[in-house]
Amino acid sequence: MKIESVDFFYLAIPEVKDIGDGSQDALLVRVRAGGLEGWGECEAAPLPSIAAYVCPMSHSACKPVSASVLGQELNNLSDITRINQLVRRNSFDLLQADHTLSGIDVALWDLMGRRLGEPVYRLLGYKRAFPKTAYASSLFGNTPQETFDKARRVRQAGYRAAKFGWGAFGLGSVTDDEAHVRAAREGLSHDVTLLVDAGTVWGDDVAAAEARLPVLAECRVGWLEEPFVSGALDAYAALAQAARARGGFEVKLAGGEGAHDAYMARHLIEHGGIRFVQIDTGRVGGITTAFDVAQYAHGKGVAFVNHTFTTPLALSASLQPYAGIESDTLCEYPVEASELAADFTHEKLPVDGEGRVRLPDAPGLGMTPHSAALRRYLVPVEIRVHDQVVYRTPEIGD
Amino acid sequence: MKIESVDFFYLAIPEVKDIGDGSQDALLVRVRAGGLEGWGECEAAPLPSIAAYVCPMSHSACKPVSASVLGQELNNLSDITRINQLVRRNSFDLLQADHTLSGIDVALWDLMGRRLGEPVYRLLGYKRAFPKTAYASSLFGNTPQETFDKARRVRQAGYRAAKFGWGAFGLGSVTDDEAHVRAAREGLSHDVTLLVDAGTVWGDDVAAAEARLPVLAECRVGWLEEPFVSGALDAYAALAQAARARGGFEVKLAGGEGAHDAYMARHLIEHGGIRFVQIDTGRVGGITTAFDVAQYAHGKGVAFVNHTFTTPLALSASLQPYAGIESDTLCEYPVEASELAADFTHEKLPVDGEGRVRLPDAPGLGMTPHSAALRRYLVPVEIRVHDQVVYRTPEIGD
Repeated sequence: MKIESVDFFYLAIPEVKDIGDGSQDALLVRVRAGGLEGWGECEAAPLPSIAAYVCPMSHSACKPVSASVLGQELNNLSDITRINQLVRRNSFDLLQADHTLSGIDVALWDLMGRRLGEPVYRLLGYKRAFPKTAYASSLFGNTPQETFDKARRVRQAGYRAAKFGWGAFGLGSVTDDEAHVRAAREGLSHDVTLLVDAGTVWGDDVAAAEARLPVLAECRVGWLEEPFVSGALDAYAALAQAARARGGFEVKLAGGEGAHDAYMARHLIEHGGIRFVQIDTGRVGGITTAFDVAQYAHGKGVAFVNHTFTTPLALSASLQPYAGIESDTLCEYPVEASELAADFTHEKLPVDGEGRVRLPDAPGLGMTPHSAALRRYLVPVEIRVHDQVVYRTPEIGD
Repeated sequence: MKIESVDFFYLAIPEVKDIGDGSQDALLVRVRAGGLEGWGECEAAPLPSIAAYVCPMSHSACKPVSASVLGQELNNLSDITRINQLVRRNSFDLLQADHTLSGIDVALWDLMGRRLGEPVYRLLGYKRAFPKTAYASSLFGNTPQETFDKARRVRQAGYRAAKFGWGAFGLGSVTDDEAHVRAAREGLSHDVTLLVDAGTVWGDDVAAAEARLPVLAECRVGWLEEPFVSGALDAYAALAQAARARGGFEVKLAGGEGAHDAYMARHLIEHGGIRFVQIDTGRVGGITTAFDVAQYAHGKGVAFVNHTFTTPLALSASLQPYAGIESDTLCEYPVEASELAADFTHEKLPVDGEGRVRLPDAPGLGMTPHSAALRRYLVPVEIRVHDQVVYRTPEIGD
């Protein structure tokens, strides 16, 4: 069969706020081939990702993503890898192409799963999908007391792991941060995993990050996430070394959500010394690339974790690449997602009584967009070049 | 003064061909502040770069580039650095933002140069601009005889350096490639620098690249450019090691044109073992970031070289960041640029009788877009979101 159409739907809540909530908009992708449909999602910035699909060619290494997808043969799973590589080669100089490709790649896996009647993780060669322990992501509170209260609520809700981050963390004094980390640990009690996300707050300032290691070790923090921007490999390596050199409980580093190809993720592992690689399937190049990273990480003794802060569709896509790796036990789980994310799919991916998430044993991603609900979130877009409409929001169907 | 407006002009020749010529289109940027204008250029894929400027916000770390530029104070040179950092922080999750930022940053330097009556290289702290030896970029011929003829013509045109690349190089047998490299050396004779560009043809296959080292050493090739994709740091490192281990004439590696921030360029130097870092000012984050890389490279004994395949405006912008580093002697010079590039500016940047290029001793970049000529290349674009026009090609003025 041939890829007949690729449609992009830009969805958003009525008022997108200047907060760290990535579920306020979404870019849904529908691929049709051989009478079947597959669905995927690109993470972040819908308009530039649409533009990367429809833009005119600049030159032979800067083609629109559409040039490498529409009309392509899609018969075997190897065709997905081939199309993925073709996009990278033909859109080499088009930076946004990796994000656009990601949603398309996810949709191609979903479509092939539906065609073959198998969940994507089985198409990837995994015999089964191991349940993952969901970690609830929260912002640190404005005061240590607020952080404590949030942690207590997360524990009471049944989560076995929780991540705190952003807010004022890392911006004030070491003493302030210590109070917040201790409050989080106290609120969670000793038996819930505590993770801390610095949100790249220290840029590449190793000393600032190092000053927080003692309290992170004292509170047995499972990882320190993104102390630095993704590219600061030397800073990551220096901090990882400092954490090992302290002796006692080792604070491990996590990072990688910004990776838009497999190489960037590998560099954080090889040259940055991270022990958890966090991959957003909607950015890195889709399930194909995320699976590649998961296998590589596993071979290096580094744990793979999804990065997902959006919809159940994106969550399912993000879990497939490492579903069958039993030793990768954690998963990010969006707990405060927007009404758009809540309405997104017919099926849901709930957390069970043991704080774990299980992938559905259903064809593809096992998630179907709720078209009727989504219609009211549609953001109508029209792009004209030379008076020709190169993109207009399509009908979403029923 | 405040930044009052930022305008994008998408320009293209009537028929963009599927060839490796990056001068077939251009994205010109005009910034206005305090009654002055500055001009810059983003490299490649105009439509997605425009979209990255005007798109609605997705969340706090995924804002349009405009959010960090329009209305900003621009009084001192440090404001340019501040704005550059602000864009990176606020548009963290918007992949295309780095390319959009690049053209704006160039325009900001041009504007400040005009305001202060100084060339940009002096604002960067360089006392003078050293002339650079232009290397003429050509494709390998279809046969060794064609390659020989091309090389002979380049020599006769007065160039002191020439780069051959792409075409069938690296795709066929080692013997084929050897014949082409020897033909190029013969055509140039012994006293013109020969450079070879593999155009990432070997992906990350070290053995394939290594098989070409003997002929490259025999023909005293000044560098082997992009044997691998930018991210393949290990492959770069392994090939650099193999080239050193051979003894005798050492084939040095060059790369970096794909870098869209300073970190990527640094990684190629630190972990990839390149000896020439090739930076496209229109991609890496503008003159601010390119200067940062040039200084870093100089400290590491690595030569900085511009990557430019477009207009005289982009060429001037790409030379400023390393203009004052005397030991960085080479520059890429587009020799077969399109009519769009030829018509682009009132001023030109010719190669002198000794095959060298000199930056003008004029305020800013010393290049003024030829508005009347450019008008006929304008690609009219309109982008509507929620029935509101968020972008429409502006008037280019006179």
